[in-house]
Amino acid sequence: MKNMNAWEEEAKLIRKWCLVSTTAAGSGHPTSCLSAADITAVLFDKYFTYDISNPLNLSNDRFVLSKGHAAPLLYTLFGMCNAFDLNELKTLRQFNSRFEGHPVPKFKYTEAATGSLGQGLSVGAGLALVAKREKLPYTTYVLCGDGELAEGQIWEAANFASYHRLNNLIVILDINRLAQSGETMFGHHMNEYEQRFRAFNFRVITIDGHNYEEIDQAFEQAHNHTGEQPVAIIARTIKGKGISFLEDKEGWHGKPVKEEDLQKALDELGTINDSVRFNLRKPAQAAIDYSLPVNTAVRLDFDNAKTYATREVFGQALSQITQNTPGMYVLDADVKNSTFTEDVLKATPERFIECFIAEQNMVSVGAGLSRLGKIPIITTFGAFLMRAADQIRMARVSEANIKFVGSHVGVSIGEDGPSQMALEDIALFGALPDTVILQPCDAIATTNLVSRMVEHTGFVYMRTLRSKTKLLYKPGDEFTIGGSKIIRQSNDDILTIAATGITVFEALQAAELLTQENINIRVVDCYSINPVDKQTLLACLHSTQLQCIITVEDHFEHGGLGDFIAAAIIEEGDYVEKMAVTKISQSGKQDELLQDAGINAAAIAARVKKIVSANNRVNARGL
Amino acid sequence: MKNMNAWEEEAKLIRKWCLVSTTAAGSGHPTSCLSAADITAVLFDKYFTYDISNPLNLSNDRFVLSKGHAAPLLYTLFGMCNAFDLNELKTLRQFNSRFEGHPVPKFKYTEAATGSLGQGLSVGAGLALVAKREKLPYTTYVLCGDGELAEGQIWEAANFASYHRLNNLIVILDINRLAQSGETMFGHHMNEYEQRFRAFNFRVITIDGHNYEEIDQAFEQAHNHTGEQPVAIIARTIKGKGISFLEDKEGWHGKPVKEEDLQKALDELGTINDSVRFNLRKPAQAAIDYSLPVNTAVRLDFDNAKTYATREVFGQALSQITQNTPGMYVLDADVKNSTFTEDVLKATPERFIECFIAEQNMVSVGAGLSRLGKIPIITTFGAFLMRAADQIRMARVSEANIKFVGSHVGVSIGEDGPSQMALEDIALFGALPDTVILQPCDAIATTNLVSRMVEHTGFVYMRTLRSKTKLLYKPGDEFTIGGSKIIRQSNDDILTIAATGITVFEALQAAELLTQENINIRVVDCYSINPVDKQTLLACLHSTQLQCIITVEDHFEHGGLGDFIAAAIIEEGDYVEKMAVTKISQSGKQDELLQDAGINAAAIAARVKKIVSANNRVNARGL
Repeated sequence: MKNMNAWEEEAKLIRKWCLVSTTAAGSGHPTSCLSAADITAVLFDKYFTYDISNPLNLSNDRFVLSKGHAAPLLYTLFGMCNAFDLNELKTLRQFNSRFEGHPVPKFKYTEAATGSLGQGLSVGAGLALVAKREKLPYTTYVLCGDGELAEGQIWEAANFASYHRLNNLIVILDINRLAQSGETMFGHHMNEYEQRFRAFNFRVITIDGHNYEEIDQAFEQAHNHTGEQPVAIIARTIKGKGISFLEDKEGWHGKPVKEEDLQKALDELGTINDSVRFNLRKPAQAAIDYSLPVNTAVRLDFDNAKTYATREVFGQALSQITQNTPGMYVLDADVKNSTFTEDVLKATPERFIECFIAEQNMVSVGAGLSRLGKIPIITTFGAFLMRAADQIRMARVSEANIKFVGSHVGVSIGEDGPSQMALEDIALFGALPDTVILQPCDAIATTNLVSRMVEHTGFVYMRTLRSKTKLLYKPGDEFTIGGSKIIRQSNDDILTIAATGITVFEALQAAELLTQENINIRVVDCYSINPVDKQTLLACLHSTQLQCIITVEDHFEHGGLGDFIAAAIIEEGDYVEKMAVTKISQSGKQDELLQDAGINAAAIAARVKKIVSANNRVNARGL
Repeated sequence: MKNMNAWEEEAKLIRKWCLVSTTAAGSGHPTSCLSAADITAVLFDKYFTYDISNPLNLSNDRFVLSKGHAAPLLYTLFGMCNAFDLNELKTLRQFNSRFEGHPVPKFKYTEAATGSLGQGLSVGAGLALVAKREKLPYTTYVLCGDGELAEGQIWEAANFASYHRLNNLIVILDINRLAQSGETMFGHHMNEYEQRFRAFNFRVITIDGHNYEEIDQAFEQAHNHTGEQPVAIIARTIKGKGISFLEDKEGWHGKPVKEEDLQKALDELGTINDSVRFNLRKPAQAAIDYSLPVNTAVRLDFDNAKTYATREVFGQALSQITQNTPGMYVLDADVKNSTFTEDVLKATPERFIECFIAEQNMVSVGAGLSRLGKIPIITTFGAFLMRAADQIRMARVSEANIKFVGSHVGVSIGEDGPSQMALEDIALFGALPDTVILQPCDAIATTNLVSRMVEHTGFVYMRTLRSKTKLLYKPGDEFTIGGSKIIRQSNDDILTIAATGITVFEALQAAELLTQENINIRVVDCYSINPVDKQTLLACLHSTQLQCIITVEDHFEHGGLGDFIAAAIIEEGDYVEKMAVTKISQSGKQDELLQDAGINAAAIAARVKKIVSANNRVNARGL
């Protein structure tokens, strides 16, 4: 092996920086980096094809670090590709460093935020699927730990990868025996991993993860195999490899080497060549196009005498938009005949991805697609999006541009019962910063809002209804994110009903009932749940006799439309001011992060003073 | 086979009622029932050991219907055990019927609510584990569909079952080829299922699921095998089996036979003996004890000069309580050295369950434990409880008595970054009806609230902090669910800060800062986030000069403490009244369910009238 010495040198430098950076940080997971140092040295030295000057080169190979706690390894690898000066690694885990405790998009070579385990193989499958469908040349590598193989999502992803014949996907399993709190389920019983991945139709190659020759041969085989299987390189490794007092020891998971022991550790590595660097093979130029044409024009005609399920209209509108918007992919979890994404499958099968009943994998595949500038539309019953709550959370940390559509929301679905009812979905999506939540109540609102959803960059969640509803709006009516529609009003409205989705029709009917008793009420369709239309609602509040808004929604009481509106109203009244975290946070010291989030002592004191200085309000208060 | 004729007769009657009940309901999944009719006929005829007069007999075998949409099969089986008059099945899916679209606890033979797929094997593993640990004689049977095998949780459960050597667990796979919207990933390629379950260390028996002899032999083998493996009976079946126009046909997933075709279908079954019943083998008497002694006394001393992490104190308190409370089981997902449940493992290993990094399975195992009258305490990082959001939701539908404890909440965890921060956990748990949410901020509050948590029957979620905090309270201070502590006040407080967890200390520090500017503020520790202490907060609102409460929390803005308090305040002010779903719903027609939830037109009209009649408020309003 002519490269053997080079690999050894490279692996030494990787080890050095994983140790140095975590010791400097005073926290982190060096031993989880060390176990994978040799295998990644060979990968980056000989196989990885990447345009380091342009992470958005569409022909780049992809490296997904599923075991996100090995972040220093990821950073060091790219540092050794001359992406930055390695000395910057000493800022690891510091506030505002791009080297966070777990990878986030701030480090621009990150394919997806990881750190919640077991998600990387799905992300990688999404990246590989696009290459497969769009005939792109790159290979996707995913580095998984052994502990995370207990996560069910791994097996969802494994099924997905072999079903979709992703022979351009190579997962490297770093079997270092030790998890956070003890030995993994299978320790070093390599056969346990082999038999599982083989059963899931991977081509399996087992190696000693510290033997350069075996590593090299594994990658050779993985690249030269002509079958349609994805590949699993199962590497037996030693956690903490290279440092005698760390090797294969319990109690060293999330623990750096102490300052005073660092030199001793580095000495064990022997002579280190600080100038060694990876000379990556460069792919052809082909930039990721984040500005593919988006054409959201929808032509659908509706008959005033008929009723329509918003989920059905959604499918029709989505199909038209997908045909005219080349970057869109539609993912469904075996309910395409209920969500009506089957319309997309029929019209543009190349842009439909059947994910079967595996919602977690579906969402993380979507995160992978988004990384490539695609617009993934992820659909299933709203209730079953809950299955992927953590993946949704992590996709948000990844700053993914995903549209989620949940059908069959609320008790209005009827006979199927509570297991199928989405009733906490607004609470979940509403908590995630900057997530738009829409709920059209008729066919015309639906066609409009599907377009608004696709046009919007960022997270959008749309609720669709199972049952049919009559037309409330006219062609040409406009709907905007953050808007609402006053659909019934008079000069002597006593109060306002703010409804959304199915309850809009209940509210209108209530208004009719009340008219018979000479009570006039205003009805607002809050089709944009977040952001909610504060301005209109406040105007309604003040112009109705009782200055009261009743919110009605087919969702649980906490975290729904009512709380969005209550927050808007109460903010105006200044009775309650909410201080909370309003953006995705980062690594740093506790004090720095509390300050950054605006919830520390100084921020509280400042808020109090602001309120006090606006004390002209006090006398106006009538409570 | 002497029983062959009996099994055929029984299977015919099962098929009849699955068809009749779904046709009567006008919805449902008869074809998914028919594929499993033969195998369950043999099971209930010859093997299932059950005291039909007492579903809570601890020695009963357990039958978990993981494919919850086959609910009519479950109901018919128990009806044929004389649990009720079969004619009652004609109320299937009707409002207030105990025969819902998917099984719920209202039907008392339901081991766990299902309908969100892929959860039953975990529930069964929980039931089997208790039998194993407590040396109980019963066998747990789980009936899974093939579509749901795509869910990762199945493989988490499979690992768990074989790791814990649950040779008292038999999973029956009903491989009927067709899922909801098309063929499953593997159709009738039986080897795909065999190789997977074999790889996960199950004993695998493959049969024709409509051949009584093979079915019988499979159960014989499953019972007689002496190894430590769980068993998978993999049955090749035909969806809609027995009715020619349903058999193996697409488009018949969630669709009953039409009224006019029902007789034609029944005729195909041939002569039906309506009086055939299962004569179950009866187990020894041994009632489930739902009132095992609960002793929540905790003896821990703290030093005023020291600081303590609430997660650490939680572990110590939990360990003491577990020792004195025989029904408690503590489950952790490979973070026991971070959540400090390792204290339980050390003191009472027989009541600790290592679930490895597989949170979904962990939660559903807990639902199984709860069914047996146990008190499961489920712990991991708060962020990773999100991984099991759907399982938590379904456990709530199951009316399970589970305590969830999430550590490392909020941005205050520091260097590990956003992937490890729980910031939407209050939103999720807060949405679920009747879920208590607690967050102690110091050691003394923690010891008290761990006790309150265990004493409470129902869902409780507790947040614990990563970092150490100083003592705020004294031994003897009392903490109650729904309570709060005013920890700083004066006669001229200008407003109130409502804080929880880490922000309590920030609020106190802010108060100190403001004192220097002669501004006095009140500080309330809202350690009970739900229910929140409305009374105290309203009193604070009214007795402070600005009538204002600032809420501060280490959680995202929507769905947190702030919204609980806003809801309380705004309710009093009558500016916003929230109408939403406040309990777990059920099967029924849309109109019935909207009415039942109190969000239909009549309810809205009534609410308006109630507000109007209280219109003396109008003039008091000063906005």
